[in-house]
Amino acid sequence: MFTFDSIGVIHSCFREKFGIPRQPGLVPAARAVLELLPPYNRVEAVRGLEGFSHVWITFVFHTRLGEPWSPTVRPPRLGGNRRAGVFATRSPLRPNPIGLSAVKLEKIEAAAGSVRLHLTGVDLLDGTPVLDIKPYLPYADCISTATGGYAPEAPAAAFEVNFSREALAACASARDQAPELEMLIRQILAQDPRPAYYGKGGGKQAFGMRLSGYEVKWEVKGDAVVVTAIALAGE
Amino acid sequence: MFTFDSIGVIHSCFREKFGIPRQPGLVPAARAVLELLPPYNRVEAVRGLEGFSHVWITFVFHTRLGEPWSPTVRPPRLGGNRRAGVFATRSPLRPNPIGLSAVKLEKIEAAAGSVRLHLTGVDLLDGTPVLDIKPYLPYADCISTATGGYAPEAPAAAFEVNFSREALAACASARDQAPELEMLIRQILAQDPRPAYYGKGGGKQAFGMRLSGYEVKWEVKGDAVVVTAIALAGE
Repeated sequence: MFTFDSIGVIHSCFREKFGIPRQPGLVPAARAVLELLPPYNRVEAVRGLEGFSHVWITFVFHTRLGEPWSPTVRPPRLGGNRRAGVFATRSPLRPNPIGLSAVKLEKIEAAAGSVRLHLTGVDLLDGTPVLDIKPYLPYADCISTATGGYAPEAPAAAFEVNFSREALAACASARDQAPELEMLIRQILAQDPRPAYYGKGGGKQAFGMRLSGYEVKWEVKGDAVVVTAIALAGE
Repeated sequence: MFTFDSIGVIHSCFREKFGIPRQPGLVPAARAVLELLPPYNRVEAVRGLEGFSHVWITFVFHTRLGEPWSPTVRPPRLGGNRRAGVFATRSPLRPNPIGLSAVKLEKIEAAAGSVRLHLTGVDLLDGTPVLDIKPYLPYADCISTATGGYAPEAPAAAFEVNFSREALAACASARDQAPELEMLIRQILAQDPRPAYYGKGGGKQAFGMRLSGYEVKWEVKGDAVVVTAIALAGE
């Protein structure tokens, strides 16, 4: 048994699991701040990291801690009904609920007692505990000859995304607090964030998700999504 | 605090730290077997993994457990005397001694109660505890636009590698037990496995390292290395 400490915590636009992209990089507008926690919040600890465009975040799927693992899971990429071995997937429900994401490092704010990494392209839930930060080393990590089993390519955009007049107006008035809200919603919904068991045309077709302090309502209509309403979320 | 269990253990050609490549992929002939441990040694747990060419191994730098961390370290790529922030390096000496390697998945042997992944290009010490296995997803993990700070490219071969007549004969007679021993030694020594504080021409210039059960003796002579002797290592 091995015991590890959080070195940091994620402050992310994703306030609930629903809406989180299935891999990093799929939603470039998804932002997070990684805040180093004491005693790791040392300016020297990130010296030289600013030269790297991307970093690996090793984190804990903290909402899955204590859940039993199963040797097989149903990954969304297999349609949600075929099973694959848990070690053949990136499912959060795994023997050790450790996650791994390569994300873009936009900026480092470092002052005495406060070290904050600004990240984009994240697939990280707000509040995620971080175990490690490592630089992304292109020569070792970007394996151009690698082939990808059942997930050889990024999922294609699933939906055309439209906004109601009211939703667009809400994005415009949210511009000061959330300048990229419209772009973020477009990128998330294009990927179809619904669980895989929602077949096209079946089941509930109106949804809500919390993003950056806003409650976003949307509906599926055939091959398109309409964002119907955006309002400040109550805490 | 988070507690994790070993899901597997590494059986590797690297029986000591000296000689281990500084990143995965630099020594393609470096082989290891990852053996899943009970209760994780289930055939179903790796179903579908055979379709992926590469896997991520999340592991523990178990020889560094309990050592104090320092906000800065001296990475070999900076010559061993300049310091960088620990989170800007892949040093094993970090707040949580968790390692991460993308390696080639050559073959899976899976039978009831015995699941073994054959890996190449490893940088893993024999006996390393494994926390997780994930498929390498090219579309999310291979970031072709990433730039790499102070380590933009793989280190160039540092040495020409020569063998004494006796060392070559020893490789030939070891062929049944270690078919790639000569290639493995060539790839390791070309990278210059010496700690960075060995300046060219200074200090001790005769070395030994244990590889796959063999004790390999070698000497540095200018820009070349000569492998002088290879013998079965006593346990």
